[in-house]
Amino acid sequence: MLGGRFACNSPRMPRIALKVEYNGKPFAGWQRQKDQPSVQGAIEDALCKLEPGPHTIAAAGRTDTGVHGLGQVAHCDLQKEWDPFRLSEALNHHLKPLPVAIVDAARVDEDWHARFTAVERQYLFRILMRRAPATHDKGQVWQINHALDIEAMQEGANHLLGLHDFTTFRSSICQAASPVKTLDELRIEQVQGLSGPEVHFHVRARSFLHNQVRSFVGTLERVGAGSWTPDDVRSALEAQDRAACGPVCPGHGLYLARVGYPDPVFKTDS
Amino acid sequence: MLGGRFACNSPRMPRIALKVEYNGKPFAGWQRQKDQPSVQGAIEDALCKLEPGPHTIAAAGRTDTGVHGLGQVAHCDLQKEWDPFRLSEALNHHLKPLPVAIVDAARVDEDWHARFTAVERQYLFRILMRRAPATHDKGQVWQINHALDIEAMQEGANHLLGLHDFTTFRSSICQAASPVKTLDELRIEQVQGLSGPEVHFHVRARSFLHNQVRSFVGTLERVGAGSWTPDDVRSALEAQDRAACGPVCPGHGLYLARVGYPDPVFKTDS
Repeated sequence: MLGGRFACNSPRMPRIALKVEYNGKPFAGWQRQKDQPSVQGAIEDALCKLEPGPHTIAAAGRTDTGVHGLGQVAHCDLQKEWDPFRLSEALNHHLKPLPVAIVDAARVDEDWHARFTAVERQYLFRILMRRAPATHDKGQVWQINHALDIEAMQEGANHLLGLHDFTTFRSSICQAASPVKTLDELRIEQVQGLSGPEVHFHVRARSFLHNQVRSFVGTLERVGAGSWTPDDVRSALEAQDRAACGPVCPGHGLYLARVGYPDPVFKTDS
Repeated sequence: MLGGRFACNSPRMPRIALKVEYNGKPFAGWQRQKDQPSVQGAIEDALCKLEPGPHTIAAAGRTDTGVHGLGQVAHCDLQKEWDPFRLSEALNHHLKPLPVAIVDAARVDEDWHARFTAVERQYLFRILMRRAPATHDKGQVWQINHALDIEAMQEGANHLLGLHDFTTFRSSICQAASPVKTLDELRIEQVQGLSGPEVHFHVRARSFLHNQVRSFVGTLERVGAGSWTPDDVRSALEAQDRAACGPVCPGHGLYLARVGYPDPVFKTDS
């Protein structure tokens, strides 16, 4: 048993990076849990169909319950020298019918790590603005009943750009060593979705605190609705106090869109 | 019983037009069936929660199994003078958790008919071009593994525009009186979807034959893949022979997008 677990993580084994897409709805988040379905667990179970386990994969971001992946990245160590494309095909076969797909795979060096080598994470948050319940995008958007002032939200968002102590926008269970982070992008746009007008938040940084994006979006929604002024966002940031944060919005509108590495890993990234 | 059924369709009762959105996945199509779930049945059941039934609603287009609605239109006759907005709210409440939503409602004249007053139907067909299985849009796109030549497909599609005998593109069970129809639009574009490149077909006509859009898309996909030339589409049309049609594509990429009437019915249309 110990040997198996050790062998699985041995640096001598070929390492493969996986780009993973998933609908977070049926999962209690990315991370493997004892009695609940998880994306990590689904992929590790599929790996066990290909090579004797146990398998332990590492991901760039451990998404919460209901949060989706578009370009999540994980890596696995295997005994055999798999052709990356054949591995992704085999995994997709065994992942069916779960809404998880390996959309790309690449051989990486033994010291490359999906989480620790990553230098950038990009999230997308989708709001659907309409009263009637979502049908096509149920569980994939945060739905609100009122219009949002995009310009006011962007003005508020601009206060968050750059290097700050983000204590206000960090959940109480966040395990990061420091609340000081640099936010590189927070761009807000209105787009026409299949079912109505949507607001998309594009958020990019080297790394994020727990619940940071959902705290941003929940706060900025209050600005868009007119309850907060754009300047209130700056005051909240400067307060460095969790109590100053707006309401944290639900996770099912959130997508881990892309993970950046110093050298491009996947063909689909270049 | 007879009285109830008669009263339900009496021309003296207030008539309300409903704009309906639905995910076709869990339904055996629009039309009510004895032992299978249908969109019509779901809405009629919801109406029975508001006023004693039976209720029979009429729709602009009876979509097949797995086909979706974005702007399907139906009408119902009710005993009470409902405020259209309150009616849509009450129906949406009773439709939960099914993926059916009344996205707009409007009072119409007694002689207005969702199907017979309609002067235009518009369909959207979505193809997702990628190898890995769809996760977010599973059951809502037709997925293919190869690239498509948009220009060649559009050239082939242009042969179909205008007044033609569409026998080639009509299913054997089609009940239309004549195969002669006028196709007003067949526009093809590539768009970037959440999960990869998509091809969208926008198809518009006064009315359609059974399986006409799916026969068009299945045939044009062959052109996009290079198996057919654009001119082969003209030959197939001129053959006026069902056997000359390309493969009929699956229904789950198809959406009834919009129904047009001589006078705008819904606020969301103007």
